[in-house]
Amino acid sequence: MIARDRSDVVIVGGVAAGPKTGAVLARRNPSLSIVLFQKDHYISYGSCGLPYFASGEVSVFSSLTKTSYGVERTPEFFRNTKGFDVVTDAEVIAINPDNKTVTVKSCKDESIHVHGYSNLVIATGARPKVPPFPVPQSPVVRYFTKPEDAIDFRRLSEKGRIGSLAIVGGGYIGCEMAEAATVWGFDTTLIEREPQVLPGGFDPEMALHAQRELERNGIRVLTGAAVKEITLRNEKPVIQVDTAGEIEVDYVILSLGVVPESELARRCGLALGEREGILVDEKMRTSDPAIYAGGDCVEQINGITGKRSFLPLGSLANRHGRVIAENIAGGAAVFRGVLGAALVKVCDKNMGCVGLTEKAARNEGISVQCVWGGFGDRPDYYPDAKGMVLKMVYDGTSGRLLGLQAAGEGDILRRIDVFSAMLRRNGVVDDLIDLEHGYAPPYSEAMDPLHHLASMAQAKKRGLSMLPPCSASSGYPGLMGAAGMVWLDVRENHQFSETKIPQYGSEKVIQIPLNMLRGRLGELDRDCEYVIMCGYGARAYQAWSILCNAGFKKIHVAGAGIAGAAL
Amino acid sequence: MIARDRSDVVIVGGVAAGPKTGAVLARRNPSLSIVLFQKDHYISYGSCGLPYFASGEVSVFSSLTKTSYGVERTPEFFRNTKGFDVVTDAEVIAINPDNKTVTVKSCKDESIHVHGYSNLVIATGARPKVPPFPVPQSPVVRYFTKPEDAIDFRRLSEKGRIGSLAIVGGGYIGCEMAEAATVWGFDTTLIEREPQVLPGGFDPEMALHAQRELERNGIRVLTGAAVKEITLRNEKPVIQVDTAGEIEVDYVILSLGVVPESELARRCGLALGEREGILVDEKMRTSDPAIYAGGDCVEQINGITGKRSFLPLGSLANRHGRVIAENIAGGAAVFRGVLGAALVKVCDKNMGCVGLTEKAARNEGISVQCVWGGFGDRPDYYPDAKGMVLKMVYDGTSGRLLGLQAAGEGDILRRIDVFSAMLRRNGVVDDLIDLEHGYAPPYSEAMDPLHHLASMAQAKKRGLSMLPPCSASSGYPGLMGAAGMVWLDVRENHQFSETKIPQYGSEKVIQIPLNMLRGRLGELDRDCEYVIMCGYGARAYQAWSILCNAGFKKIHVAGAGIAGAAL
Repeated sequence: MIARDRSDVVIVGGVAAGPKTGAVLARRNPSLSIVLFQKDHYISYGSCGLPYFASGEVSVFSSLTKTSYGVERTPEFFRNTKGFDVVTDAEVIAINPDNKTVTVKSCKDESIHVHGYSNLVIATGARPKVPPFPVPQSPVVRYFTKPEDAIDFRRLSEKGRIGSLAIVGGGYIGCEMAEAATVWGFDTTLIEREPQVLPGGFDPEMALHAQRELERNGIRVLTGAAVKEITLRNEKPVIQVDTAGEIEVDYVILSLGVVPESELARRCGLALGEREGILVDEKMRTSDPAIYAGGDCVEQINGITGKRSFLPLGSLANRHGRVIAENIAGGAAVFRGVLGAALVKVCDKNMGCVGLTEKAARNEGISVQCVWGGFGDRPDYYPDAKGMVLKMVYDGTSGRLLGLQAAGEGDILRRIDVFSAMLRRNGVVDDLIDLEHGYAPPYSEAMDPLHHLASMAQAKKRGLSMLPPCSASSGYPGLMGAAGMVWLDVRENHQFSETKIPQYGSEKVIQIPLNMLRGRLGELDRDCEYVIMCGYGARAYQAWSILCNAGFKKIHVAGAGIAGAAL
Repeated sequence: MIARDRSDVVIVGGVAAGPKTGAVLARRNPSLSIVLFQKDHYISYGSCGLPYFASGEVSVFSSLTKTSYGVERTPEFFRNTKGFDVVTDAEVIAINPDNKTVTVKSCKDESIHVHGYSNLVIATGARPKVPPFPVPQSPVVRYFTKPEDAIDFRRLSEKGRIGSLAIVGGGYIGCEMAEAATVWGFDTTLIEREPQVLPGGFDPEMALHAQRELERNGIRVLTGAAVKEITLRNEKPVIQVDTAGEIEVDYVILSLGVVPESELARRCGLALGEREGILVDEKMRTSDPAIYAGGDCVEQINGITGKRSFLPLGSLANRHGRVIAENIAGGAAVFRGVLGAALVKVCDKNMGCVGLTEKAARNEGISVQCVWGGFGDRPDYYPDAKGMVLKMVYDGTSGRLLGLQAAGEGDILRRIDVFSAMLRRNGVVDDLIDLEHGYAPPYSEAMDPLHHLASMAQAKKRGLSMLPPCSASSGYPGLMGAAGMVWLDVRENHQFSETKIPQYGSEKVIQIPLNMLRGRLGELDRDCEYVIMCGYGARAYQAWSILCNAGFKKIHVAGAGIAGAAL
């Protein structure tokens, strides 16, 4: 296993936070003896890349275990290049804080060793949530969290053994695996208990863009659908869904989310939080000052609410590792709260979020305001300009920025990252106005989408009324009928004829191109309540301004126009 | 021209800042009478798109004058949609601040009108610098600032009348037109007086990436080359270049930069700055409280140095317009200093910068430090990962961030925008560590390049020595020879054989793969001074750490490795 029976630093867990801690620490203080125990065979693999190996887009598994210069990350690699010891197939089965030792079991020969430490680092990650329904033992009903899961899926896919697939859980992994299924061309059903996919980081009307994209790619998406049980019939999985009856498939992926793998910590008496994550201070230190923890096994402070939360994200794990190493090396690094910046590719749609959703902000009792906008990611005249829809959540009283959600084929990445940087500094709406973004026609418009969102938020202060995008999930048709509102579509005539809006339903629709609106105000009934619709939301905003100045009182803009409707 | 002889607000200039001011103002205060005079026929066109119309990538010119929904931006459009009056072909020939009028000449019938104002907005833009050498009057020796220039270039290109082209001036427009020339396949020479292209926003070793990209695409780039004169021989332009003799071509583009078009302002007594730009306060008000100015005709405060500067960028002009409108409408908007965020596409290379270059920071007397790194824009295992080289400039004493430069095929946009947001808040190196970027394998690595740059800057505090990339322009070969340094190449054997480094020249080179370095330290001479080289810089940093811990004293990392060398 390893010659010595004591190390200055013992690290438990070898995927992200663990190896990062070891590597930074060995560089910062090469005189320390460091050993990392990893219970699995694989170590420091790109776990976020598993769906792309499953889909075949990453052709060989070893790509995930190699450095960018093609060297395999083996225990020898860590010894020679990174300067610390790694023992794989070695499970830490107990932590003994009183005498500062860990008990390690070899997964090969079952032998037991005791290893001493001065500092211990727990980086045990997360494990799949136990489903709230019966699940049979079967090689074709699997979680998707380990390399073996991806390898098995890929092997069966290549052999043509999967014709039909069910994915239970429409979070990040569920959506990524649904995309993988479209690459293989499987007959796929995605089942999500919540009324929307991606419920963690997105509000319903934004998540709808991902759902529609999956549907466009042939996936059957069942939202608001609870699995009652999974059984086997002639070894084939059969899923009972409350809203859809029985579904028989060749393979089932369970992606219901994860919980912190904190059992070792709990057993040795470390303080855990409500979500079973290990509690750490801003130095990533647990309730035992000699023990640090990082990665998906800890609870973190939400940088916006100040409350504890559980956000298993690979980028955070790596940053935790750095902070832990720095502190053990004698520095004074702190990990500031998490903001929840996350991206997920769903076929051709880029989905991104950071901060609080509207839903989450309302739950915090904040006086939430939202604006939505549809944008091109570069000038319309430049070839291959792509669209996106953004939703900004902010505090209507203080103007404090709370969150941004993005969906579309366009470049959402810049906006998520910039918004994240602003959230970190407790930015307000007006700060967005001061953003100096990089501009050139191949990359962007002269005004950034974030500038426009800020202008809309300012306009709301002056009376602009914006309604959520008229997506199926925003409950519009009912609203329209109930309130007797009238749609005012200000697109050009040819656009109006070409793109029909199913959400209009049987409601009254008046179409006047924006350019003619001033001259045709007489056609509108001042007692009516109007919802103004256009392509991206910009013309509707302009029309609102014209109507408002003409004395109309009950007028609303449909946020993000048709782009927001996720047709 | 226009019926009334007085407006609440008169705007002079109709490209970017002017129309933006009018549109926002009419929305903010619809009771104001507003008129905009534009001396040219074209109005509110995407002037930054002219190079892409010239290249044919934007197929029809009218794309640049239309809204994203396909409506032409005519005076009628501004009247009907935006709510203010626009008069084209109308040149304001004098401003009379004493009686608050402007004198307007119709370019059609030469008639003269006087028009009164309460507030005046000057948005006259910039005009080409007068070359410091003789230039003949000829339709094929042209500046490239007006729609007519692009239209003429495109027309002659399509007719096959341009076989050879010279571009004088290698700034943004010069490089964009060089790219346009590669689309047409012209025999093209780019002549730049400075020793590098893109001298405004980039240091030499970073600009070299753009130069090499142009050369790879067949452009002959002459840097440090002064044009002595341009003459005509049988109506064909002949350029005398001090370092290259005579160059005869079919067409010459003069892109030597621009100066503020401030003549009207000067004549009416408004205060101008050293660069002839109109002086404005943070509300964009000139020395006459009734007169505002914005866009390329003003000098702006540099947000980092606090000094006046001239930065003609389309994104700034639009933001100026907003601030002016807000203030005239009775609000209190301010324009905070400029950071100089700029992007330019040079064939397949994305070039971006924000803040101060190393050169500019040194000129300010700041104790400058720099770090360089080469990065993939997503994990190496993910298909189509692309590379980039970043250079970060910061204050070595306070850690204050000063500037970022980026070059490469990868996604530099996020990094420029995030860095800009951090500069705006006077961010320091440690703030970068706290960045929570959006991460998923199709978009990014778990650690952002900005995290790595910050780590390197922190390591420099602890003794890391990093030398500039070993580009031709960094003067390396001389340095090596003089100091007797030895190259230590820590790449894998096959990489070492496959990619030769011309910069190694005849210097001594030792090659030991990083993974073997700890075991082969005996092969190195502890009295020697080593420069460590690898692919992107990360392995060299690791090797530095190993050597440093082994007691080696004179060791340096070659910043950004081979990626930085712009081979």
